[in-house]
Amino acid sequence: MSPESRREQLLELGTQLLSTRTLEELSIEVLAEEAGISRGLLYHYFGNKQEFHVAVVRRAVEQLVAITAPRDIADPLEQLAVSIGAYLDYVVENHTGYVSLVRAAAGGNEEVRTIYEEGRRALIDRIFEINGPEQLAQLGIEDSPGLRLMVDGWGAMTESVILAWIEDPHGLSREDLLHRLAVALPAIALAR
Amino acid sequence: MSPESRREQLLELGTQLLSTRTLEELSIEVLAEEAGISRGLLYHYFGNKQEFHVAVVRRAVEQLVAITAPRDIADPLEQLAVSIGAYLDYVVENHTGYVSLVRAAAGGNEEVRTIYEEGRRALIDRIFEINGPEQLAQLGIEDSPGLRLMVDGWGAMTESVILAWIEDPHGLSREDLLHRLAVALPAIALAR
Repeated sequence: MSPESRREQLLELGTQLLSTRTLEELSIEVLAEEAGISRGLLYHYFGNKQEFHVAVVRRAVEQLVAITAPRDIADPLEQLAVSIGAYLDYVVENHTGYVSLVRAAAGGNEEVRTIYEEGRRALIDRIFEINGPEQLAQLGIEDSPGLRLMVDGWGAMTESVILAWIEDPHGLSREDLLHRLAVALPAIALAR
Repeated sequence: MSPESRREQLLELGTQLLSTRTLEELSIEVLAEEAGISRGLLYHYFGNKQEFHVAVVRRAVEQLVAITAPRDIADPLEQLAVSIGAYLDYVVENHTGYVSLVRAAAGGNEEVRTIYEEGRRALIDRIFEINGPEQLAQLGIEDSPGLRLMVDGWGAMTESVILAWIEDPHGLSREDLLHRLAVALPAIALAR
């Protein structure tokens, strides 16, 4: 196996381990034990703990962006609900690691924050890529910098509501939740 | 001056100092120097650095809740915009300290997080106190646990949008921003 493939494989394993561990709990030692190789070899691949964490977080964010990619769904609100559903499932399945990633990003780990914000940026920008000016115009929405600011806010709301819903669904089914979050986007954009 | 008044005065000074400093920069040493008293006396009043920070954060959150208190405004959306405006002004005036408080709360300082979340809870619950079931019914909104979850999400959106707007207004005036955030609340509640 080439060093690149080996590193790739270790990164996959690290990302899997992160799903049920916080970033703090995910050490080079833990990965070495799970992979059955020496710590020295892992340091060779990842340099140090922070670089290892950054590589794992980057991979986790790439996965999140990939699994929420648009399917071939004509109705834009249904498309949005499906993407939010994929995001929700990811957060449920990787809850411990995801929460610790959000905390690290919010709490001042600058490298983790940068990767996390790039991921959020990619997810939000995709909404505008799928729904170009014509689709927005059909919904009565005019693209503008102010709109972008509010849509970013919708992204923050979606993340916050999903984390709260996982702790306590407040009587909302998964389907109800996804629908409410999807219809909130044009509602926010169109509210006057 | 009684010990209570003296502690109170020091707490006011600490909260003022926090406005232009991060929590990490606000040490017992800094307060001692500004107040012109000994560090020993400050340790007597506040115990240790974490207890001092907790007392200052609690005071800051109390101030935030107080200055956003409803005025005597009949129109609920105008009332909401005025309260959001007071919140915005507070964040602008205390930007360094406020951002560090949010980071500490999000990043795992559990005591700071608890106080911060109690403050957010108080701000959101007030919306429902002012707008009782009758006012909500007039707007076509039915109170429900699912609604509470979405309104909490609106709160997270508002905080996020305000912090982003301070960094880059995206061409939105203060008035436009407050209006957009206020009308977003019933829009989110009513979207189907």
